[in-house]
Amino acid sequence: MSNPVVVRVDLSTRSYDIVIGVDVLDAPSSWQGIGAADSLALIVTNTSVAPHYADRLARTLQPLFAEVGVLALADGEAYKVWRSAELIIEELLRRGADRRATVVALGGGVVGDLAGFAAACYMRGVDCVQVPTTLLAQVDSSVGGKTAINHPLGKNMIGAFHQPRRVIADIAALRTLPRREFVAGLAEVIKYGVIADDSFFSWIETNLAALLAGDAAAIGYAVECSVRIKACVVSADEREAGMRELLNFGHTFGHAIEAGLGFGNWLHGEAVGCGMVLGAKASCRLGLVSEEQALRIERLIASAGLPVVTPTMSADRWLELMRHDKKARGGTIRLVLPDGPGSGKILPVDEGLIRSVIESTASAP
Amino acid sequence: MSNPVVVRVDLSTRSYDIVIGVDVLDAPSSWQGIGAADSLALIVTNTSVAPHYADRLARTLQPLFAEVGVLALADGEAYKVWRSAELIIEELLRRGADRRATVVALGGGVVGDLAGFAAACYMRGVDCVQVPTTLLAQVDSSVGGKTAINHPLGKNMIGAFHQPRRVIADIAALRTLPRREFVAGLAEVIKYGVIADDSFFSWIETNLAALLAGDAAAIGYAVECSVRIKACVVSADEREAGMRELLNFGHTFGHAIEAGLGFGNWLHGEAVGCGMVLGAKASCRLGLVSEEQALRIERLIASAGLPVVTPTMSADRWLELMRHDKKARGGTIRLVLPDGPGSGKILPVDEGLIRSVIESTASAP
Repeated sequence: MSNPVVVRVDLSTRSYDIVIGVDVLDAPSSWQGIGAADSLALIVTNTSVAPHYADRLARTLQPLFAEVGVLALADGEAYKVWRSAELIIEELLRRGADRRATVVALGGGVVGDLAGFAAACYMRGVDCVQVPTTLLAQVDSSVGGKTAINHPLGKNMIGAFHQPRRVIADIAALRTLPRREFVAGLAEVIKYGVIADDSFFSWIETNLAALLAGDAAAIGYAVECSVRIKACVVSADEREAGMRELLNFGHTFGHAIEAGLGFGNWLHGEAVGCGMVLGAKASCRLGLVSEEQALRIERLIASAGLPVVTPTMSADRWLELMRHDKKARGGTIRLVLPDGPGSGKILPVDEGLIRSVIESTASAP
Repeated sequence: MSNPVVVRVDLSTRSYDIVIGVDVLDAPSSWQGIGAADSLALIVTNTSVAPHYADRLARTLQPLFAEVGVLALADGEAYKVWRSAELIIEELLRRGADRRATVVALGGGVVGDLAGFAAACYMRGVDCVQVPTTLLAQVDSSVGGKTAINHPLGKNMIGAFHQPRRVIADIAALRTLPRREFVAGLAEVIKYGVIADDSFFSWIETNLAALLAGDAAAIGYAVECSVRIKACVVSADEREAGMRELLNFGHTFGHAIEAGLGFGNWLHGEAVGCGMVLGAKASCRLGLVSEEQALRIERLIASAGLPVVTPTMSADRWLELMRHDKKARGGTIRLVLPDGPGSGKILPVDEGLIRSVIESTASAP
C-alpha cells in the first residue's frame, strides 16, 4: 500500500477525503485546506487517548487556526450521553467559537459520535474532522456522517447526519490500542466482507494472523478496503433510505446485547460479532445461505477472537430490545441477512424464528 | 385572498408546502399526503395552546396514523432547553415511534423550535409538520427549517437545519393569541418589508390599523407576503451561507436584549422591533439610508406598538452579548443593515459606532 492512501466520499457539496496511512495524524499534508486564521479548532478526545496524541495533533493545527483547544472527556460508552455533548458545546461557547470553528474528534467511536453530534448542533452545524484512533472507528464510525448519543432506552437514539470535513485514519495509532478493542474492530471489517465483497472476506480469512499480529501493511489494506465499501454505500444512500441499511448486519442483535447488558459491558464490536453469527444462522434457517456459508462466517468470527455465544438474557428481553431498533417498522423487526457470498438484503423476520435462533446460540446450561 | 393559499418552498427533495388560510388547521385537505398507517403522530404543544386546538387536530390525524399522541409542555421561552427536547424524545421512545413517525408542532416559535429540534435528533431525523398558532411562528420561525434550543450563554446556540414536511398556518388560530404576542409578531412582518420589499412595507403602513383590529383578510395577506419572501430566500440559501443572513435584520441587537434581560422578559418580536430601530440608526450613521428612511422604519415600529427605546443595560454588556452572535466572525460583530427601501446587506460594524447608537436610543435618564 502506498502511504498515504486517499479514498473519496462522493456527496456533491459535502464530499470529503479519507486519508489512510502510517503517521498521517500530524502530517501537515493530511490537513491541507483545513483551517481558519481568525477562528479556532477544538480537539475533543478522551483521557486515555490524549496523553498519546493530543499534543502532537495540537502542534500541527496551531499554524492553521487562531486558537487550538483540547477537551479531554472521560473514556467509555457510558459517557456517550447528552451531558458530554453539552460539555463540548460549552467549551466552544466559552472560547467564543463562531460558525467557522472546527471540531476535531480524536479517539474511538464514542469520541467521534459525541464530537460529531456536538459539531452538528453547535450553531446548527460547524465543521468536524474525524481522527479515529481505534480500528472500529477507522473502518466504520468515522466515515459516513452518522453521529449520535445514547438513551437508556436505546443506543444512538438521538443524533444527526453530519458529514465530516475529512477523516484522517492513522494506522500507527492502532499500536496503542488494547488488543480487546482491536479485535472488536475486526467485527466491522468482517461485516464488509460478508455483505459486500466475498473476495475481501477470503482475504481476511487468509490474512487474519497478520492482522492479529499487528502487521501495519495488512491492517492498512483492511482499513482501505473497508472504507472503500463504506464510501461507496454512503455516496449512494447518505440518509439510510435503502442500501445503507445493509451496513447494519449484525447490529440489530448487537444493539440488543449492548442495551440489555448495559452499555460498555460488551464492546460494540463484540456485540456485532456475536450478532453476525445470529444473523448468519437466521439467514440459513430462511434458506438464504447454505449451512456451510453460515459456518464459514461463524468460524472467521471465532478465529478473530470475537464471542460467538450469546450472553444470558431471556428471549423476551431480546425481542423487546430489538423492536426498538431504528430499522423496525410498525413494531416488526427487520434484519440484514446475508443472501450469498458477499451479498446481503434486509427483510422483516418472524419473531418465532428470531427466538429460536437466539436460544440455539446460547451456551449449554 | 383565496382560502387556502399555498406557498411552495423549493428545496429539491426537501421541498414542501405552506398552507395559509382560515380554519385550515384541521381541514383534511391541509393534511393530504401526510400519514403512515403503521406508525404514529405525536402532537407537541404547550398547556396554553392545547385546550384550544389539540383535540381538533388529533381528530383530523386519527385516520391518518395508527396512533396519535399529545404531549403538552409548559409554556414559555424558559422551557426551550434540552430537558424539554428530551421529554419529547422520551415520549417518542415510550410509544415505540419508528423512523416513519411524524412530530406535529402545534404552537408558537418555542414549540416549533423545540419539537423541530427533537424531530431532527430522534433516530437522526423524523418528519415534522409545523402548525404555527402565533403570528411570529406563522410568518417566520415555522418556515425554513431552523430548529434550536437555548443555552444560558446565547439564544438558539444548539440546533439543526431540519426542513418541515409541511407548514399549516391557520389565521383563525390567531384569534386566541394575546395582543402583546400578536404585536410582537408584527416585528417580523415589518422586517420583510424593510429588507426585501418596499411596496410591502408601504402596504403595512397603510393597513396597520386593519392588522391591529384583527382583520383576517389583512392578516392573511401579511402572512402570505411574509412567507413568500422567506420561502424565496430559504430556497436560494438553505443553510444561511449568504443571503439568508439578511432575515436576521434587528436580531443581533434583539438577541442581546433577550439574553441580557433573561429569556422571556421581552418577547422575541419586541426585542427584534427595538433591534430594527437600532439597526436603522446604524445604517443611517453609515450613510446607507437617509435619516428620513430610518425615521420611517422607527415610526412604523412605534405605531405597531413595539418598543423603540432600549432597556437599561450597559454598552459593555450589549457588546459582549453581540460578539456571541452566530453571524460574528473572529470576534467582529456583523450586522444586517438596510441600504435603501426594501433592501439590506450585511457588514462588519465598528464597536464604537454600535456603542454610540445604543447610547442614543436609551430612554432619557
